[in-house]
Amino acid sequence: MTSFKNRSLLNVESLSTEGIERLFSRAKSIKNQINAGQLPQPTLAGKQIVLFFTEASTRTKLSFQMAAQRLGAQCLIVDDQQRSSLSKGESLSDTFWTLHSLRPDLIIVRCGGEAPLEDWIEKSRIPVINAGFGSIAHPTQALLDAFTIEDIFGSLQDRRILIVGDVDHSRVAHSHFRLLKRLGAKITVCGPKMMTTLIPQGIDVESDLDKAMKNCDVFMGLRVQFERHRNQSFSKESYIKNYSLDEKRLQNLPKEALIMHPGPVNWGVEFQEGVENHAQFKMWDQKQNGVFVRAALMEILLGSH
Amino acid sequence: MTSFKNRSLLNVESLSTEGIERLFSRAKSIKNQINAGQLPQPTLAGKQIVLFFTEASTRTKLSFQMAAQRLGAQCLIVDDQQRSSLSKGESLSDTFWTLHSLRPDLIIVRCGGEAPLEDWIEKSRIPVINAGFGSIAHPTQALLDAFTIEDIFGSLQDRRILIVGDVDHSRVAHSHFRLLKRLGAKITVCGPKMMTTLIPQGIDVESDLDKAMKNCDVFMGLRVQFERHRNQSFSKESYIKNYSLDEKRLQNLPKEALIMHPGPVNWGVEFQEGVENHAQFKMWDQKQNGVFVRAALMEILLGSH
Amino acid sequence: MTSFKNRSLLNVESLSTEGIERLFSRAKSIKNQINAGQLPQPTLAGKQIVLFFTEASTRTKLSFQMAAQRLGAQCLIVDDQQRSSLSKGESLSDTFWTLHSLRPDLIIVRCGGEAPLEDWIEKSRIPVINAGFGSIAHPTQALLDAFTIEDIFGSLQDRRILIVGDVDHSRVAHSHFRLLKRLGAKITVCGPKMMTTLIPQGIDVESDLDKAMKNCDVFMGLRVQFERHRNQSFSKESYIKNYSLDEKRLQNLPKEALIMHPGPVNWGVEFQEGVENHAQFKMWDQKQNGVFVRAALMEILLGSH
Repeated sequence: MTSFKNRSLLNVESLSTEGIERLFSRAKSIKNQINAGQLPQPTLAGKQIVLFFTEASTRTKLSFQMAAQRLGAQCLIVDDQQRSSLSKGESLSDTFWTLHSLRPDLIIVRCGGEAPLEDWIEKSRIPVINAGFGSIAHPTQALLDAFTIEDIFGSLQDRRILIVGDVDHSRVAHSHFRLLKRLGAKITVCGPKMMTTLIPQGIDVESDLDKAMKNCDVFMGLRVQFERHRNQSFSKESYIKNYSLDEKRLQNLPKEALIMHPGPVNWGVEFQEGVENHAQFKMWDQKQNGVFVRAALMEILLGSH
Repeated sequence: MTSFKNRSLLNVESLSTEGIERLFSRAKSIKNQINAGQLPQPTLAGKQIVLFFTEASTRTKLSFQMAAQRLGAQCLIVDDQQRSSLSKGESLSDTFWTLHSLRPDLIIVRCGGEAPLEDWIEKSRIPVINAGFGSIAHPTQALLDAFTIEDIFGSLQDRRILIVGDVDHSRVAHSHFRLLKRLGAKITVCGPKMMTTLIPQGIDVESDLDKAMKNCDVFMGLRVQFERHRNQSFSKESYIKNYSLDEKRLQNLPKEALIMHPGPVNWGVEFQEGVENHAQFKMWDQKQNGVFVRAALMEILLGSH
Repeated sequence: MTSFKNRSLLNVESLSTEGIERLFSRAKSIKNQINAGQLPQPTLAGKQIVLFFTEASTRTKLSFQMAAQRLGAQCLIVDDQQRSSLSKGESLSDTFWTLHSLRPDLIIVRCGGEAPLEDWIEKSRIPVINAGFGSIAHPTQALLDAFTIEDIFGSLQDRRILIVGDVDHSRVAHSHFRLLKRLGAKITVCGPKMMTTLIPQGIDVESDLDKAMKNCDVFMGLRVQFERHRNQSFSKESYIKNYSLDEKRLQNLPKEALIMHPGPVNWGVEFQEGVENHAQFKMWDQKQNGVFVRAALMEILLGSH
């Protein structure tokens, strides 16, 4: 399997474009099987997968666990609380290598930006998947979002993605920039100035949300990370007035455009209640697709397909 | 499968009498198989079951988990501690629907009385089992108790069940009233006045325990929920004097009568030490039977039998 | 299976010498299979194993879990945090017997020295494995260490094992004394006087580490348990000066001698950084072998091999 560097997923650059196509094609067929009420082949039977989550993230953990078990793998969970008991005098790296020494077939890691994840992947004798790395990267979220868009529109080519809100603090957004562009999409960012200071070249910035909405195929909300704005002149009221998606603002959105969000939504902030009742709202599809994309990813990394 | 409303178990009314018979018959055959050292058919192979426990309840959780795995299902656990990490700004319902969106085959819920469990069951596209709902209902406990009595006596018809103690705060007792009566049993309640104010019609109340014991087939102790009596004029000494089952009081109990308790026992309060050495003491059987009854329940709800 | 008393493992005396040989032989063949990329036979398929860990020990728990699942068993985990929710008014014994009543096939127990583990094993109707019992015994750690030495040297006969450091507080050391001697090894202990007061007869004590190192086949470091030395005149600096293994001291060690440690290492105390880069350093092998030895142990106790 040559489309992954070191058979691991550090970030979206770990995948070749051909690797992504293969991944999405396999995710699609797993999706079709499960939706038809069939059991997918237990292609990971006998595989042992360690979920090493040093940060709380029940949602992503469950998604990986469900994906792994659907294909017959066994999961061993080492999460934040257990890590503390594991860590008597140990560094994070000691813990990683201890888990590695138990010889699982795959390690899935969620960790803060200070963890030497690149070094672990470089030296690991088994595949490692980045399941969220500080505010640096969250490649599987970007992959499942791209898959969701492609699954509905057929392709990302020339699709206009509008990313709204707390971009600077979003590891998701940074993975999106790189992945979605590579797949041919055009990205526009819209949010308060204080939340959009770190926008790379090649990404459009638009200050007027209502105007930007009229020309998009996907409205992608991002969670406002209040805990990061405590010491700043952040006004929640002003955010809601200018960026919250409500029934009135929704009228600016093209009928075919999708409403997405990596979750969890701050209801009343990014979205007002009622938004979830529109057929355009695809957050539940994103979550469902996450299981299929992660299943396909593990299968490919483990060389089982 | 028409004997369950919406293929879910909200309370004992979710089952038809014919549904209960079928459930007990299947539980009995799983019990016989396991007791004979045989592996039951993996009728739930490939099924994924989420245990969503927002209240601490390791005992019930383990029982469901063991039941599910015995039939080949996979369990994903979201418990109290994980719920808190799951809940960044989320309502309990958001969490439920997030779990639902991951497409498990069944969700087992333990929650406080404030949770909109009825609404979830109404709208869910997959079966949901109530594994304890505030002080409102705990149908699987009632089912396993009824099964235990029927398994020993052959039937509940005309059996006299004496429920002793903290009835008002017991979700178990409230489920018992409804289930055991439907199956033909006669229920008498005995306990301090302050603990027996909410007794529905058709249930006898008897104040003299020694007298009531002489005419019962089952002595069902209930856990005294001390945490609910802090601000009241509750006297532990007086409770023990009048309601605790000890060697002396045991002499009033007919030789064939069963001693049961949903657990965990406050030893020295509901029962004095030594009671567990009598052959009439069936608490361990209740726990064992819980696994069989829950296994049969999941099998029937999932249409796998 | 006659080589285990009561089909349980309380301590290293629970095994006959013939039982140990059989165990190591089976562990070796599981190791060979897994190293060759083969799946071991699912000899524990359908077995349910409860891990009852009343003390934090993620490392040992994971090792058992991985071993059990490798052979197809299902694990149910009751750990410290869950125990507290389990324990409403319950004694540790109540909890044990509640778990026992759910009819798992095996219970693996980690507990403090105050727990009546011997009594549980005596009365249990199913096999029980001691996975760490206060500071009294940790037989599977001793077994995996013995296996690691035998796997490299072919036999323990006449091998000189040097155990260094905090011997008094080490349940591992006490299990080592008994097991390694029975297998023919010669044991020397070296450490500060305050840490080596409880040495049984037949074990040599040597005060000069550099001298002792020159004549050993295995240098076994032990974790300094700082939390036990708070009120004592323990000097970390003095410990490091006299007992820490660093590059300079390593020159006293014969080229073929192994460096072992039950883990986790206090880096900078028992070992200085860099020690792990020597080919003699076998801690990762110990951890790997732990999975194989525990798998073989469970297989034999459950009569599946």
